[in-house]
Amino acid sequence: MAGERRLITALSRIFGPPPARVRRGIGEDTAILAPEPEQELLWTIDTLIEGVHFDLRYTPLRSLGWKSLAVNLSDIAAMGGEPQYALLALGWPPSRDLNQALALAQGMQEVAEAYGVAVIGGDTVAAPAGLTLSLTVIGQVAPGRALRRDGAQVGDEIYVTGPLGLAAAGLEVLRHGMALPIDRQESVTTAFFRPRPQIAAGRLLAGQRLATAAIDLSDGVASDLEQVCLQSGVGAVLLAEALPIPPVVREVACHLGYDPINLALQGGEDYQLLFTARPEKRALLRTAFAQGGLPAPTSIGRLVAGVGIRLRRGEEEMEIAGTGFDHFPDASLA
Amino acid sequence: MAGERRLITALSRIFGPPPARVRRGIGEDTAILAPEPEQELLWTIDTLIEGVHFDLRYTPLRSLGWKSLAVNLSDIAAMGGEPQYALLALGWPPSRDLNQALALAQGMQEVAEAYGVAVIGGDTVAAPAGLTLSLTVIGQVAPGRALRRDGAQVGDEIYVTGPLGLAAAGLEVLRHGMALPIDRQESVTTAFFRPRPQIAAGRLLAGQRLATAAIDLSDGVASDLEQVCLQSGVGAVLLAEALPIPPVVREVACHLGYDPINLALQGGEDYQLLFTARPEKRALLRTAFAQGGLPAPTSIGRLVAGVGIRLRRGEEEMEIAGTGFDHFPDASLA
Repeated sequence: MAGERRLITALSRIFGPPPARVRRGIGEDTAILAPEPEQELLWTIDTLIEGVHFDLRYTPLRSLGWKSLAVNLSDIAAMGGEPQYALLALGWPPSRDLNQALALAQGMQEVAEAYGVAVIGGDTVAAPAGLTLSLTVIGQVAPGRALRRDGAQVGDEIYVTGPLGLAAAGLEVLRHGMALPIDRQESVTTAFFRPRPQIAAGRLLAGQRLATAAIDLSDGVASDLEQVCLQSGVGAVLLAEALPIPPVVREVACHLGYDPINLALQGGEDYQLLFTARPEKRALLRTAFAQGGLPAPTSIGRLVAGVGIRLRRGEEEMEIAGTGFDHFPDASLA
Repeated sequence: MAGERRLITALSRIFGPPPARVRRGIGEDTAILAPEPEQELLWTIDTLIEGVHFDLRYTPLRSLGWKSLAVNLSDIAAMGGEPQYALLALGWPPSRDLNQALALAQGMQEVAEAYGVAVIGGDTVAAPAGLTLSLTVIGQVAPGRALRRDGAQVGDEIYVTGPLGLAAAGLEVLRHGMALPIDRQESVTTAFFRPRPQIAAGRLLAGQRLATAAIDLSDGVASDLEQVCLQSGVGAVLLAEALPIPPVVREVACHLGYDPINLALQGGEDYQLLFTARPEKRALLRTAFAQGGLPAPTSIGRLVAGVGIRLRRGEEEMEIAGTGFDHFPDASLA
């Protein structure tokens, strides 16, 4: 198993030595760690499959490495937790140069370092039919403080932690080979290549009990808000004018003949947090975010009684539906 | 995402409600659990890919479900731990009937129930190029008690917890459509279809500090013992006459013109434990296993100074090499 061992040695150099509370790390089938006392564990797994979740024509391997871990960190952020450790199960096509696997690992290590996370082990296998990545991440949160999807109430305001549609615009720019001025090109493609999990915002919301519900924006506002609404048993009204859509997203949408509102609401991979909060928390929220050195969250609408999400645009109001990717649209189960 | 939701609902019915220390389970991206105080966590991930790790011609989905979780539980057993929770990341080919995914889940739940493990969440995605399963399992062990691969010493005896070659014989019987008397057919195919992770044996070894090193037999004695030898810096001598090779394995080997010793040493998927122990522990080991209601482990050889594994067969001694599957035999890394 010399080839596999060389790969694992190279990976362990990239990921570095494990932190103190990790008793055994890379090189074992099983990691051993000492959880911190009096904390609850958050535990998530995500699989990314070539041709389903990513297209290597538009995603360099270093960026894929960043994104694959960032997506998992974003799941922890959505619960208000602090991500700590990751295991990587890498399914690598034997026909592809293994050095590219190291580029993938380097991208992963970049996001790990940026957020204080340690990749401490995993599994490497051959995957002839295409690159497959499974990552499992453990984080921690103070007991009972995890943010949930089912706590939203009628009357709550709906917030997002940052701009909408940037990652979707970035992918469109890449797909269509659009020529944008370099600074704007950079802002949309960075959003797509290097999404930033909103860990500080999540921890602030959980720590100060500011939110009634939260979710991370992986599939887009329409789909992800729909999850919160379904699980909380409420409806929502969004205000088109309130959506934080950067000029560059409008520019890309205009160029391609899209409605920028669509790019903002249906475009995925922004990895901002969407959260709901009682209206009386408005001032407290602004202060807390400012004190935490975080940009003020933007209120984009309000929860109402009933079901469904409506978008208010000037005088008009229209029903919108989540169009998040359904992996099994034709599922029939006996 | 109606199809995905139906699938998740069906899976949550199969896996049942989460145990008390799990605060959020199936239906969330992230599980929340309260680890038991004063315990270390064992954490593992394994990916199984269609065409690499299994062939659905020889493995019914229910059996694949059992095996995919059993393999992970076996990793925890090899550390002497108690497996507790699992997350399943299921990559399912959209062209395949989703009801078969439920058969897979049922097999998984069978092994979970048999060993007191709860499947508490995960992720379901489409995998057009073939079925992909990633499982991550958390277990626990008393601090400092985990069995290791690197603690073996010259002079230690080498033990296995049960018969060798049964699973490999089972696969050969299936591949060659061999007709065996039904009871013997059952014993080899059950070993292949329903491997039993040796959790009780692992916990006993760790709890009473009886072993200097341990590993589970996934790739075969030659490969797995090689891991222990390499990590501990020792060599090994195995005694051919001591190997616990059941008559049915000899019968299958004979029928196919194989050396039964080869099937026993190179055949994978037995999922027994191989462990090493100081010779003065011999009597204690027998007593402890008997008191634990476990079959006595079989001594198959001894650790020696040097490198490599030699097999003593009558008067002859020959070097054997691990031929465990190398996923990346041609790996060249810059």
